[in-house]
Amino acid sequence: MKLATVHTPSGTAAVRLEADDAVHLGASDVGALLGDPEWRERAASAAGERFAVEGLDYAPLVPHPEKIVCVGLNYRNHIEEMGRELPTHPTLFAKYPPALIGARDDIVLPRVSEQMDWEAELAIVIGSPVRAADERAARAAIAGYTILDDVTARDWQNRTLQWLQGKSFEASTPLGPALVTADEVDAEAGLRISASVNGEVVQDDTTGQLLFGPVELVRYISTFVTLRPGDVIATGTPGGVGHGRTPPRYLQDGDVLVTAIEGLGECRNACRREANGTRP
Amino acid sequence: MKLATVHTPSGTAAVRLEADDAVHLGASDVGALLGDPEWRERAASAAGERFAVEGLDYAPLVPHPEKIVCVGLNYRNHIEEMGRELPTHPTLFAKYPPALIGARDDIVLPRVSEQMDWEAELAIVIGSPVRAADERAARAAIAGYTILDDVTARDWQNRTLQWLQGKSFEASTPLGPALVTADEVDAEAGLRISASVNGEVVQDDTTGQLLFGPVELVRYISTFVTLRPGDVIATGTPGGVGHGRTPPRYLQDGDVLVTAIEGLGECRNACRREANGTRP
Repeated sequence: MKLATVHTPSGTAAVRLEADDAVHLGASDVGALLGDPEWRERAASAAGERFAVEGLDYAPLVPHPEKIVCVGLNYRNHIEEMGRELPTHPTLFAKYPPALIGARDDIVLPRVSEQMDWEAELAIVIGSPVRAADERAARAAIAGYTILDDVTARDWQNRTLQWLQGKSFEASTPLGPALVTADEVDAEAGLRISASVNGEVVQDDTTGQLLFGPVELVRYISTFVTLRPGDVIATGTPGGVGHGRTPPRYLQDGDVLVTAIEGLGECRNACRREANGTRP
Repeated sequence: MKLATVHTPSGTAAVRLEADDAVHLGASDVGALLGDPEWRERAASAAGERFAVEGLDYAPLVPHPEKIVCVGLNYRNHIEEMGRELPTHPTLFAKYPPALIGARDDIVLPRVSEQMDWEAELAIVIGSPVRAADERAARAAIAGYTILDDVTARDWQNRTLQWLQGKSFEASTPLGPALVTADEVDAEAGLRISASVNGEVVQDDTTGQLLFGPVELVRYISTFVTLRPGDVIATGTPGGVGHGRTPPRYLQDGDVLVTAIEGLGECRNACRREANGTRP
């Protein structure tokens, strides 16, 4: 199943995506849907109002997750090519929900940063509460997968030891377009993941290179906190970010960033430099 | 005014604290109350059901903030005594809401950490939405102040470059007991802040030593994200943490941690080692 959160004239709505149609599921968004323990059956059997898939206005897949957990330094070949030791534990940091945008929304390039950079990532979406999980429980808690681009203000990320302030600029982080349920994709085995800017491929790898895979990440994070339905785990980015280039390259006003993962679709986001006086 | 969130037989409730009584405000918690733009008038004029203050069962002051923003390295004398340069920007990291507990609840010492440590902190609670604030707007957005103890698993904090995983253990972080509105305390001028373990004072300082004060923190954070009613900013801890001692000292099963700030009351939390099989 493919599920999405879309804007409608009466607010956001969770839908099931079919070939040509989106079927209304009677929930305000995919996060709210996942809060229903019967979400799988509900989503599969719903026969509500239908919309055309073409022209859907995607909201962030989960607009208000309790947690967005991000992972750094998690692609094996990228760590090795940088000559670093393989880490023994995942590097985790957070992002706040207002950073999220939909899969076709504009990425806001803030006036106060000149170094906004792409980071294509596979994202896990949690489907049931889980704490202190073993491998089996961790696997069962994964509702499915989607795409997140952890667009980062490098100048702010590197101001201090902690990365948060470069990772949570409002309206910087595409999440979507759809939740593809875990039975439909094998993210552990490897899905091709890429980013392109104005059609030029800048990242191209496979999720099979993840040092800490999805099940292991859910298990590890659940050691210290209960993961809840709608929580999002962004699993880290492969090599090819703009900050690592010579000379460095950053997103510019008018650039179109496409973040794609095999079987999950793509986020396609134009970048728009924030103008003076336009901030709400 | 002093406002609190308390447990009642029918769920949590926001109350106004008076000398002997707590007055019901008709909101489920202080976070929900602050979401009402008229919260000040509503809280001041409410004449709902009254409870005795004695024996109140405090919930986390804001049980589900959209954001908990924590500040590291922010007490001037502590930075100077460590021989470090004064930072030019605040060091920010996050904590997830399930870490929060009430002002009299037990702190859970996890089975998987042997290094749980105290960090007494002044916390700001946001009372109105604010983005790209100047000093005046930042000041106006502060509803008031409370106490947070940023209890930290040092072994997990130092596993990787990013501190998050040592900062978000479930049921580790007292928040409360009350929101004291900004008109009643001068946090910028300096409030005495202390922590004690089993009656022994281990931290004792004044919030006047904050390098980045409350108004400046709200201004700075609002540069990258909209702060919303109920958001919590923990402003950092002074010297005296257990990890900095020779030999280091950590919280033990049965310890009582008291975190106090002049004019804001105190959190008084017993530490309880998580037993095998007790996890929900």
